[in-house]
Amino acid sequence: MTGPFQPAWIAVDWGTSNLRAWAMAADGCVLAETGSDEGMGRLTPGEFEPALLRLISPWLEGRPPVVACGMVGARQGWREAPYRKVPCAPLDPAAMILAPTTDPRLHVSIAPGLMQARPADVMRGEETQIAGALRLMPDYDGVICLPGTHSKWAHVSAGEVVSFQTFMTGEIFALLSEASVLRHGMQGGGWDEEAFDSSVSDALSRPERLAARLFSLRAEGLVAELAPGTARARLSGLLIGAELAAARPYWLGQRVTLIGSAALAAAYARALAVQGVEAAHLAAADCTLAGLAALAPRTEATSP
Amino acid sequence: MTGPFQPAWIAVDWGTSNLRAWAMAADGCVLAETGSDEGMGRLTPGEFEPALLRLISPWLEGRPPVVACGMVGARQGWREAPYRKVPCAPLDPAAMILAPTTDPRLHVSIAPGLMQARPADVMRGEETQIAGALRLMPDYDGVICLPGTHSKWAHVSAGEVVSFQTFMTGEIFALLSEASVLRHGMQGGGWDEEAFDSSVSDALSRPERLAARLFSLRAEGLVAELAPGTARARLSGLLIGAELAAARPYWLGQRVTLIGSAALAAAYARALAVQGVEAAHLAAADCTLAGLAALAPRTEATSP
Repeated sequence: MTGPFQPAWIAVDWGTSNLRAWAMAADGCVLAETGSDEGMGRLTPGEFEPALLRLISPWLEGRPPVVACGMVGARQGWREAPYRKVPCAPLDPAAMILAPTTDPRLHVSIAPGLMQARPADVMRGEETQIAGALRLMPDYDGVICLPGTHSKWAHVSAGEVVSFQTFMTGEIFALLSEASVLRHGMQGGGWDEEAFDSSVSDALSRPERLAARLFSLRAEGLVAELAPGTARARLSGLLIGAELAAARPYWLGQRVTLIGSAALAAAYARALAVQGVEAAHLAAADCTLAGLAALAPRTEATSP
Repeated sequence: MTGPFQPAWIAVDWGTSNLRAWAMAADGCVLAETGSDEGMGRLTPGEFEPALLRLISPWLEGRPPVVACGMVGARQGWREAPYRKVPCAPLDPAAMILAPTTDPRLHVSIAPGLMQARPADVMRGEETQIAGALRLMPDYDGVICLPGTHSKWAHVSAGEVVSFQTFMTGEIFALLSEASVLRHGMQGGGWDEEAFDSSVSDALSRPERLAARLFSLRAEGLVAELAPGTARARLSGLLIGAELAAARPYWLGQRVTLIGSAALAAAYARALAVQGVEAAHLAAADCTLAGLAALAPRTEATSP
């Protein structure tokens, strides 16, 4: 007879835009996965518990502990999990914050993010992926790059995050390609690898010319029939190149590992390869789950 | 007995976001001024005539010619006025395009913009301000900078626009300060002149660090209580500094005149002064009217 569905614990990645949850077995296997677009950005504090219950209510019979990371712990989130200050280990089980709940089946703890005083910087969610990466690559010493809406570069050594820096590359790409005058020349599919490569190189070798390159993408569309796929690849290359120019101390002569989606990690890997850096790649979800697993209370697998 | 209100001609500045019109006397004096937010960006071709009539209908008894410049002449405008190619005089009365009208009192001509083949660039509206500036400063030889949503730098010599370059500085400032994560730290008034100056200098001297400066504005708000006015001044300084870095060939060792609103021109003048360039300043509307006046058909002042 098959018993009720009883995960040992539940992993939750709760960012600004999305909520994802995984039902986990005691051995670390994923039993089920779910998600919604009820990110922290659209929720008031009282709306977090119902949003979570909508997704994971069927998994709660055995009262498995829920372990969450990301913007859910921001000041405007479910409950603030105050930043921990680098240099420090990316996660500390003793620093978890309990979320206020009314459903007796729910026990939710939230991982704090990291902050750096000078230069000022913050992260929420990436610290869990970094912790996961360190579990997947024990004794890793080098740089971890997490490209995305807000790309992070972190220098890790001896199990600690030593320093990190955030770049708004993904958000700026979205704003310029979807909300600025450049959007007119970027409708339609296609991609131009060569244009991407040369734009990365251009931004790296002549960073002072960046501001002059952007409107050209629109003007060439008007006077020289620039293809949308080429325009988008050039914008992406310019912005990633500008990020690499500013992040040079993080990758020059360093061991680099990328954590992110396959497509985005491939674009960064390609840009770095031109600079002579062969970056490794880990999938974001693997790192998130490995990081959250380290925070899950020790539980025995239950059987009916 | 006072006759009906009869301007000699009507000047129209019709951009993407705004429509402005002036009733002009034969001697160049402004008799009346009006405007609306019915910019080209929100109008289909058939909506231009009604939008214009809503503003200037009371001025049309004497059938004064209407002379317009700006995005009204774009491909998505009222009627396309094909670009003229630099190097050339900023305006050519013989190249005016007639707009299709149904009201027999309306006679509307549109000034073409300018285009540059390499590097690809376009302008619509600024050519009229440049032409006006050349009427206000005969024999001017040097650089004209028109800061704004899309800043333009133009090299003018012997009455011609020799080359020009567009920067998206104003649009990017608006997107980042109002639509990106940075907006959270920019609510409220205030301005920090010193932060502006040091950010301009920073962007000019270390352009490769630009991408690393942006998220700091948010992070310092979170961990170091950065004041909104300081954050906004720093963002403005970084973006104007990045523009100046890319526009260096336009201002280094050049005579520079700024055309724009007092506040924006003052910010650019301040940034340029730190670089040793003392820029002159002309008001945008003065230049627009002086430029359009050169296009107005010769008319005699009529009296009833």
